[in-house]
Amino acid sequence: MRSIAAAISTAVMLALPLAAMAAEPCLPCHKEKTPAAVEQWLGSAHARANVGCEKCHGTDHEKMLKGEAKVDMKVCGPCHQKAYREHTASRHGMGLHSGWGCTRNLPNRKPGECRFCHQKGDEVPTSDVQCARFLKQSPEMGEIGCNYCHSVEDACDSCHSKHMTDLKIVRDPNSCAKCHMGPDHPQWEMWQTSLHGTLNASAGKKVGPDCQTCHMPKGTHDVSIGMTMSSGGVPYPAKKAEPARAEMVRICGSCHAPGFAKRELDRGDQVRSQSLAIVKEAEKIIWDLNDRGMLDPMPADRPPHPLSGPRLVTDNQMLYEDTSHIERLFFKMKKYDYARTVKGAYHQSPAYAHWYGNAELKMDLVDIKSEASRLKERKRGAAVASPEDAEDQLKTLKNKFERGAISAEEYAKGKAEVLEKLKH
Amino acid sequence: MRSIAAAISTAVMLALPLAAMAAEPCLPCHKEKTPAAVEQWLGSAHARANVGCEKCHGTDHEKMLKGEAKVDMKVCGPCHQKAYREHTASRHGMGLHSGWGCTRNLPNRKPGECRFCHQKGDEVPTSDVQCARFLKQSPEMGEIGCNYCHSVEDACDSCHSKHMTDLKIVRDPNSCAKCHMGPDHPQWEMWQTSLHGTLNASAGKKVGPDCQTCHMPKGTHDVSIGMTMSSGGVPYPAKKAEPARAEMVRICGSCHAPGFAKRELDRGDQVRSQSLAIVKEAEKIIWDLNDRGMLDPMPADRPPHPLSGPRLVTDNQMLYEDTSHIERLFFKMKKYDYARTVKGAYHQSPAYAHWYGNAELKMDLVDIKSEASRLKERKRGAAVASPEDAEDQLKTLKNKFERGAISAEEYAKGKAEVLEKLKH
Amino acid sequence: MRSIAAAISTAVMLALPLAAMAAEPCLPCHKEKTPAAVEQWLGSAHARANVGCEKCHGTDHEKMLKGEAKVDMKVCGPCHQKAYREHTASRHGMGLHSGWGCTRNLPNRKPGECRFCHQKGDEVPTSDVQCARFLKQSPEMGEIGCNYCHSVEDACDSCHSKHMTDLKIVRDPNSCAKCHMGPDHPQWEMWQTSLHGTLNASAGKKVGPDCQTCHMPKGTHDVSIGMTMSSGGVPYPAKKAEPARAEMVRICGSCHAPGFAKRELDRGDQVRSQSLAIVKEAEKIIWDLNDRGMLDPMPADRPPHPLSGPRLVTDNQMLYEDTSHIERLFFKMKKYDYARTVKGAYHQSPAYAHWYGNAELKMDLVDIKSEASRLKERKRGAAVASPEDAEDQLKTLKNKFERGAISAEEYAKGKAEVLEKLKH
Repeated sequence: MRSIAAAISTAVMLALPLAAMAAEPCLPCHKEKTPAAVEQWLGSAHARANVGCEKCHGTDHEKMLKGEAKVDMKVCGPCHQKAYREHTASRHGMGLHSGWGCTRNLPNRKPGECRFCHQKGDEVPTSDVQCARFLKQSPEMGEIGCNYCHSVEDACDSCHSKHMTDLKIVRDPNSCAKCHMGPDHPQWEMWQTSLHGTLNASAGKKVGPDCQTCHMPKGTHDVSIGMTMSSGGVPYPAKKAEPARAEMVRICGSCHAPGFAKRELDRGDQVRSQSLAIVKEAEKIIWDLNDRGMLDPMPADRPPHPLSGPRLVTDNQMLYEDTSHIERLFFKMKKYDYARTVKGAYHQSPAYAHWYGNAELKMDLVDIKSEASRLKERKRGAAVASPEDAEDQLKTLKNKFERGAISAEEYAKGKAEVLEKLKH
Repeated sequence: MRSIAAAISTAVMLALPLAAMAAEPCLPCHKEKTPAAVEQWLGSAHARANVGCEKCHGTDHEKMLKGEAKVDMKVCGPCHQKAYREHTASRHGMGLHSGWGCTRNLPNRKPGECRFCHQKGDEVPTSDVQCARFLKQSPEMGEIGCNYCHSVEDACDSCHSKHMTDLKIVRDPNSCAKCHMGPDHPQWEMWQTSLHGTLNASAGKKVGPDCQTCHMPKGTHDVSIGMTMSSGGVPYPAKKAEPARAEMVRICGSCHAPGFAKRELDRGDQVRSQSLAIVKEAEKIIWDLNDRGMLDPMPADRPPHPLSGPRLVTDNQMLYEDTSHIERLFFKMKKYDYARTVKGAYHQSPAYAHWYGNAELKMDLVDIKSEASRLKERKRGAAVASPEDAEDQLKTLKNKFERGAISAEEYAKGKAEVLEKLKH
Repeated sequence: MRSIAAAISTAVMLALPLAAMAAEPCLPCHKEKTPAAVEQWLGSAHARANVGCEKCHGTDHEKMLKGEAKVDMKVCGPCHQKAYREHTASRHGMGLHSGWGCTRNLPNRKPGECRFCHQKGDEVPTSDVQCARFLKQSPEMGEIGCNYCHSVEDACDSCHSKHMTDLKIVRDPNSCAKCHMGPDHPQWEMWQTSLHGTLNASAGKKVGPDCQTCHMPKGTHDVSIGMTMSSGGVPYPAKKAEPARAEMVRICGSCHAPGFAKRELDRGDQVRSQSLAIVKEAEKIIWDLNDRGMLDPMPADRPPHPLSGPRLVTDNQMLYEDTSHIERLFFKMKKYDYARTVKGAYHQSPAYAHWYGNAELKMDLVDIKSEASRLKERKRGAAVASPEDAEDQLKTLKNKFERGAISAEEYAKGKAEVLEKLKH
């Protein structure tokens, strides 16, 4: 048996380029076990530079078989220093902070997940990026649903593929499409149907720029240049936003007149603040219902929020499960439709800015108001005989005061006004 | 300083083709300021024909810098007369009439917008196309959300791009995709996944026809040939529809047997009238609720419609904001799902005709009926002790009479019947 | 006249390859009437092999003109025996069983439709595949909305096109996209944006596998190899599932390490069972409302189900029309969102597994619970003065017993408990 294997091994070796010697111990088996990996590596710059299997994968075969020997960016960093530096400084480098935290309060967490946010033994997170804890996921959904994209933080192969080094893969917008699509941030879809994307399809990249043209100019790995808001859509303060905007106008300037570019982007800012106002109006309605005990079910009557317990949560840590219908409508409004409107406007996509974005945003508000009307009526129905309005108002004031939305003076003044009205 | 600039100018000139002399005064600066425009123009048929910057852009540099020196189709028309004539006669030439009117009643209208519908000093619109006034937009959303597409009426560069003249751009269905996609008219998506589109992708345009093959045969700019309904989906009268259908069958005939083509298109007509019946059923439910004062909120209790004031509007001027939940459901049904069903059927797209269209249409009706049931109950709940049915019926009859839905005689007869029943 | 026609015929003949002699009687006319068909056939392997028009179309010109002379797979089978055998054994070969049955109880059924499920004169269907009877369609929608896809059962031209034989058409994933897209099974969309699909777009089929690579390895027409659940998403028993899984791991193995492939697919199984649990929770809520007479409207108060009459149906025969709002929500949950989650997980698509799938599934549950809460309250509101809880519980027990959900003993025990409580 061994002599046959040895013969095959020799034969395989003879058929391989010299560079393959770097991988000599692994190839005989892996030609059989993982043929695509071997073939792709053989055609790669790594093979040509004599960078073999062990250099990246190490030697712990046991771990590899269990799928635990991840080749993360700490493995790639020492050779690819500039890319490593730019990537870790960018929003991509913080990807997992915003996606991983989700499972932290659930029972089946794997040891080692903590390190994405915490230094060993340190309770304070290393990043101030707000975690997307609305993702209360099973480990399996966490893997496919979260980490398939959020692996970008610490794994170069999220974009570069595992064994090929051909840059045409990462220079193709399809490389970005894997993650930047779908209900919450359909940048791929909006680019595809924008003037930029359609010209790209009909006349090529030089005429119709793609993701990389504007977001990775000159091949930088800092994909966050020119951003004037957080990934959650919160505008940056002027001090941070202004130089970023100037940078983006400079990028647009390689094709467009700066005045034109600035007007287009400033219009995006206007759409953003108009849209945020609609979201805030809806959020206020929901908090008011909460203050008046009218949500169905109330936060205290459902499984507690992993971080905030039996309290209403409408910020980025909002859950999309164990919640009420009106909060679910708000989740769609804020997470999907606000993002579509704003990103659609900045990406010059009429259908996303308007139909998929702004129109949905306004219809969400209609639905939220209608549901609020129903919830108020329901509560009134349950207390027909009581002087409900006054009681309701006093309770609302108390709740607002207790959560710090109004001051002690405003509370006192409000109470006095309600009681005064009752006398008449 | 001036001598350096002059030297650069000369150097630039020497590097350019002779044709560029036509643009001589602009190029030295614009090579720097708008490099893509200059490069594209240099490669264009315009440059070859000695058509320079001023010919299209004029000489008012001040206006250009403010983005107000639009190169609209009146600039292109004198040279491209056939295209101009065909375009203005087509539905594309009426694009803005159906998209621009939306802002007419809002405060921040720009002077000059009126001319899209009105001759100077004339209150009667020049077109009888019904305006899509449901778009009560901010100026910024009006620009990106409406005019990015509806600019097609008076700007050739909507499709042709600004400085290139390569026809491969406009002969690519991507050129149409920019606008003809999204929730309200996803022709691009339904073509892509139809047999026509999938054959186009796998075997090329000759085997799988694209938008231009059927809607712009022989390069005509009249994109409306063969249409048998308005852009809002209202069937044309037979006198107008029949020759249009014959025309479309002739177009199909360059690949298909006429009998087959006719059967396919006639089936689309059937689907259209079946779908319209579902929409009408829903519309009737909403008007009935309105007549009985059961919408929540009623039109009188919300911001007035820009054109119709405190009255219910369910035609093409229907708004998608400041409305009620049930009207919002109807907006989706009529504007999105009816369009998907009908256009899906005419474009031979099973998923759009059925799943995205017909199935949604029927589920909309379920939701509208359920919401109507809730609204009726709510009203009854509020008036437990009164002989509500009779009162309700009398009020409904009165409202119907007042809005002209029933005649004076029908009103009198209806009243008599209700009162008769009350006696027993 | 005849001599002119004869002259044309001769001229046409001279311009054609020798093979065209096989079609000699048809070509002179059909060069005019169906030019694309003639041209495609002339370039086909059929023409080269002297397989002419009559061989497939027969000679009944009358039937052809009416569109009734379908060239189904019984025509192709005798020459293409291997493909025929593999296809009929596969899920594709049972396509119509799951799509055609829908119209069986409706008045305008065409004679001949029965044969898709029944042998002549035999009431027992030849297939145990459950029909998708939720499709209560008009004949026109049945044609475009159902049969454009479900024709796959008995028509090779569903994928192969009508007159071309170039295999590049069927080897292109676009060929699959025609049907495998849309709300209920967007495999095309999830593949396009998966790592497999994006690598296919940027680096070609060898690096990024397409539909055919994994589902039709070595060109088999049995597209169901490796499937571990029914097309409705019901897991197969281990005896059937295990060898299928082993087969799929073997297919993955042509690129991936088997251990990796197995882990990925097993994770899909986990996601499937987690998702099924969410669906079951919702289904239970709806049956409970039905048992308590709280659906609005109740099955007895709406047009009867074509098969089950005035009874609640939530299995694969569920309708999406003539139903209640909460059932409509459940239809979306089960038919769309469950399928997206599960198929998204097996196709390694993060956005479909999570955002379009799992997140929607959980939000559906929120909406269903909220609607259930409203329906319960509504019922209580209608019966304020009665000892409603006990009555409600007794009725529920009775209904459960009558539909066989509890045994006679459980019923007796339940009743005793309720009555016992009433005493206190």
